Amino acid sequence: MTEANYSFSTGFAVRDYECDIQGVVNNANYLHYLEHARHEFLISKGISFSKFHEEGIDLIVTRVEIDYKYPLRSLDKFVVCIKIQREGNVRIIFEQDIFRQPDHKLIVNSKVTAIATKNGRPIRPGDLLSQLGLE
Amino acid sequence: MTEANYSFSTGFAVRDYECDIQGVVNNANYLHYLEHARHEFLISKGISFSKFHEEGIDLIVTRVEIDYKYPLRSLDKFVVCIKIQREGNVRIIFEQDIFRQPDHKLIVNSKVTAIATKNGRPIRPGDLLSQLGLE
Amino acid sequence: MTEANYSFSTGFAVRDYECDIQGVVNNANYLHYLEHARHEFLISKGISFSKFHEEGIDLIVTRVEIDYKYPLRSLDKFVVCIKIQREGNVRIIFEQDIFRQPDHKLIVNSKVTAIATKNGRPIRPGDLLSQLGLE
Amino acid sequence: MTEANYSFSTGFAVRDYECDIQGVVNNANYLHYLEHARHEFLISKGISFSKFHEEGIDLIVTRVEIDYKYPLRSLDKFVVCIKIQREGNVRIIFEQDIFRQPDHKLIVNSKVTAIATKNGRPIRPGDLLSQLGLE
Repeated sequence: MTEANYSFSTGFAVRDYECDIQGVVNNANYLHYLEHARHEFLISKGISFSKFHEEGIDLIVTRVEIDYKYPLRSLDKFVVCIKIQREGNVRIIFEQDIFRQPDHKLIVNSKVTAIATKNGRPIRPGDLLSQLGLE
Repeated sequence: MTEANYSFSTGFAVRDYECDIQGVVNNANYLHYLEHARHEFLISKGISFSKFHEEGIDLIVTRVEIDYKYPLRSLDKFVVCIKIQREGNVRIIFEQDIFRQPDHKLIVNSKVTAIATKNGRPIRPGDLLSQLGLE
Repeated sequence: MTEANYSFSTGFAVRDYECDIQGVVNNANYLHYLEHARHEFLISKGISFSKFHEEGIDLIVTRVEIDYKYPLRSLDKFVVCIKIQREGNVRIIFEQDIFRQPDHKLIVNSKVTAIATKNGRPIRPGDLLSQLGLE
Repeated sequence: MTEANYSFSTGFAVRDYECDIQGVVNNANYLHYLEHARHEFLISKGISFSKFHEEGIDLIVTRVEIDYKYPLRSLDKFVVCIKIQREGNVRIIFEQDIFRQPDHKLIVNSKVTAIATKNGRPIRPGDLLSQLGLE
């Protein structure tokens, strides 16, 4: 599987402060990369968190599964690739994989589950699903 | 299930810089809490990373599954509780759950898979398993 | 100078994820320690950010001077010590120093300047200064 | 003063996880931006940390002065600009300023002092100074 199989990808470079004593990116920082890539993806779809938030709607991560395949090191460049699907009425699944560049080595596989809530309760987010092409 | 069902627990307090725009602890920071609790647990078992590292042995996280049940906020106190088991010959599973204090509200369920490697290759870490009571 | 010369101190232990490739705490993390210690200090004085915030008053850091004397490493324990003084009508100076424990080795000297703002404009925060004993 | 007065600049965008409860970038994260920009600057000069490190030479930050002029927020783009000078025989001063883009608003002024050490002792780093044009 290569980056072409995804609907969105965005590039990063490792920053030294993200590496730990072992000289590799600390495990928690991959969640930062995944989160930032999701936000860029949603913005690319014209989705405005602040507009939804004003209507009381928030998108909340409820579960993350992440497989660490190979570590990133100082100066490495990489892309985070995203595919999405709906699961039932309320869950949006972000399949997010990280590949080192330029050699396409698989670094991380992940599956991030999010739900929309309105005033704290799960809802079926019609407008959001439309904008994501999941309706 | 309460904290009594685990073999180890360690207390934390949320620091404001760990919270994000929504006023809750950022998802990635829970991985920091889980990592720090694992390291404290291993130290409590007399396990010295540096001694193992000198012998070429490292303990590597290969997979994290984390369910976010309820968010932590500024000033919240909480405990990270740990149970371990062996899976096959090479995997050590850390079941790590987070409870807010003093009300024991479940915040996070997680399952962290680690393997021992010697010079980069997975091994059955006999001494480590003994010290963890998993032999 | 020892910890006895300060009006407040609070203890920490280095967490491994705070260390970088060189095996020492990354420079930026000392600002996290200093911030968390200031917040604990203000809480110890009965100062509620949220109450002040509701009145439109915020305490903003405008300048940090920090001298790195000696690095902290994995597992090190340390204290952040605080002394405060007023500078003119609007500035509060936090002199914050970090000492490793138990050997009292000086790790960091710092001077953090904060001002109070009301609806974004600097003010002389009478109530805050009283609670801090700076009136 | 604009970006043209510096010898190096590099662009960033704020990531949401870098913002805190107040909706602005947390103060400590500016030190991360400054560090990453310095490393990019040194790489642009052909300076290899690993080669110097093999010779026992390290570049250590000993002091940071930072003035927070205006906060960055979610989605803001900005540049970190760098000028350097020598101070005495052993200190290299990085004057690093941050400007929001595209409006050039000044966000942060900073002065970062570094020294070179060989096997832990300060030295006059001839080769490094040459490569930086400070000889």
